[in-house]
Amino acid sequence: MHVTAQDVFAVLRPDLQLVEDRIEAVSRVDYPVVSSLVLDLVRSGGKRLRPLILLLAARGFGGDKDAVVTAAAGVELLHTASLVHDDTIDRAALRRGKPTLNAQLSAGAVILLGDYLFAQSAMLAAATMNPRVVAIFAGSLGDICDGQLHEMFYAHRLDQSRADYDKRIFGKTAALFAGAAEMGAILGGASESDVQSLRQYGADLGMAFQIIDDVLDLREGTQQLGKPAGNDLRQGTVTLPVMIYASRFPEGTPERTLLERLALSEAENIPGEEIDALVDRIRLSGALEETVSVAAEFVDSAKRHADVVPDPETRAMLMDVADLAVNRHS
Amino acid sequence: MHVTAQDVFAVLRPDLQLVEDRIEAVSRVDYPVVSSLVLDLVRSGGKRLRPLILLLAARGFGGDKDAVVTAAAGVELLHTASLVHDDTIDRAALRRGKPTLNAQLSAGAVILLGDYLFAQSAMLAAATMNPRVVAIFAGSLGDICDGQLHEMFYAHRLDQSRADYDKRIFGKTAALFAGAAEMGAILGGASESDVQSLRQYGADLGMAFQIIDDVLDLREGTQQLGKPAGNDLRQGTVTLPVMIYASRFPEGTPERTLLERLALSEAENIPGEEIDALVDRIRLSGALEETVSVAAEFVDSAKRHADVVPDPETRAMLMDVADLAVNRHS
Repeated sequence: MHVTAQDVFAVLRPDLQLVEDRIEAVSRVDYPVVSSLVLDLVRSGGKRLRPLILLLAARGFGGDKDAVVTAAAGVELLHTASLVHDDTIDRAALRRGKPTLNAQLSAGAVILLGDYLFAQSAMLAAATMNPRVVAIFAGSLGDICDGQLHEMFYAHRLDQSRADYDKRIFGKTAALFAGAAEMGAILGGASESDVQSLRQYGADLGMAFQIIDDVLDLREGTQQLGKPAGNDLRQGTVTLPVMIYASRFPEGTPERTLLERLALSEAENIPGEEIDALVDRIRLSGALEETVSVAAEFVDSAKRHADVVPDPETRAMLMDVADLAVNRHS
Repeated sequence: MHVTAQDVFAVLRPDLQLVEDRIEAVSRVDYPVVSSLVLDLVRSGGKRLRPLILLLAARGFGGDKDAVVTAAAGVELLHTASLVHDDTIDRAALRRGKPTLNAQLSAGAVILLGDYLFAQSAMLAAATMNPRVVAIFAGSLGDICDGQLHEMFYAHRLDQSRADYDKRIFGKTAALFAGAAEMGAILGGASESDVQSLRQYGADLGMAFQIIDDVLDLREGTQQLGKPAGNDLRQGTVTLPVMIYASRFPEGTPERTLLERLALSEAENIPGEEIDALVDRIRLSGALEETVSVAAEFVDSAKRHADVVPDPETRAMLMDVADLAVNRHS
């Protein structure tokens, strides 16, 4: 039996619509201007992968649909809230090719809207009335913050270890994937050992997802991503493909020195063509392929952990979503 | 039987110390610079009134001490987190006469630290393993954000209604007092009707507390508050005493026009002596005394609601804390 990514979304469409309705319902505020900004924000939100994983994890075991939909909406809003603050922290003007709130509102108003979305997401988590789900939810937020702190201290170091990188992307992405899968399994009524397997499924999938994001940042350009190729590098953020590429050049070599200057956020002092040429050299070096193979290992591990799911259709869908993390262009 | 404010703190000192230990334990992070900033921040934090109210509300009925201490630490950290973001939203450089994080860190780092404290506070709420406590906790955060949104839209209007003012200060202060008292009563095992009475006790006390804060802002100076008298007015924030004073001057009169210019945050275009003289006129007008009497009504209402508490010693202490809200100089 095999399902495609399209099947997964088709099968879950009714549930994803319920999630969407919950998200919209709690995103309405009494202040008209703010309300339309928040609704635009939650509506423009990507692929809804985190709710999808939570719904699938629950579906694999069974459980109370209403609490599952509530938790899935909470997870997506927590993700949205963290993006809002993330963009403020990075002072980003664009996300997914669209202006961020930073381009439209004062920093204070953006902080406040992020907090508002955090509050709404926490209320959804609380509404599951499941203390363990709430604890995982709060823990995921803690992991996200920890990942961002780690990013602030280590992301600009070319000599960061693989463990530093892993810790950072776990917080940035994998923590909430892990939490989503874990919450879903709990609400689905899985056994403790199965809950832990699903958590690991989510964690591995999230790691693969972020690693591929870091590859796409170098491989794809403005058309696919809404930002120029090598955007992370231009911002001074050192990702796994860059680490792999840099490891081939000893200190003091011109290539290494150029990379170090970029890591120190000196991009604005370097001619654009020089950075474009570096991005091309990284693309041709095999570093991207080597990075993809690291992601593929995480996907394999995710799939092994999904093997515990009793419902065969859902199990196949979880496998399919895992493959999707690697086989994508945006 | 009568207790003094000092008695209340003396009786609860051991429990407050447990709360302090919990707060410090969760405020330690892996990054040395950040860790010391966060510890400074949580240690410099005021009177611990919110944990005190939660502890008292629980003590009046009984209940599991450990969960009560955990929830009290969570409430105080939520308060601290909201102050951190508040100061960023207002771009305040000083609080309680000390430099805020804004004076020491980038806006991004401050947002992140606020989020980190939110995460820690949510984990404490979740650690009570009481779904209702978590729901109240999340709802309080929602109320705080709603109050701040209201502030953004209405605080600079001289013609705001008393209902606008009440809604704003409920979110700013009373919501978390209400939540603290409600969580305490729940964890203390109070009946549903007593839980609601205690919630109203907290709400009324919080309203009185904020109204008196707004009076102190005009009545006391740099020595007591660490900021000049009339600081709110200088920032363009219209509070109850100013509303009462302004209501005596019809539109178009010079006094009203001066107040309107201040409300529109034009303080920097007005000579300092002119604002000092206005603050003096407000002080002498009776508007402060009229405002204090509004606060006193809230205190009376708070006390009536505390009457349901079965333990006489705790009941007396709750009354005493309510009086403390009005009889203070900082």
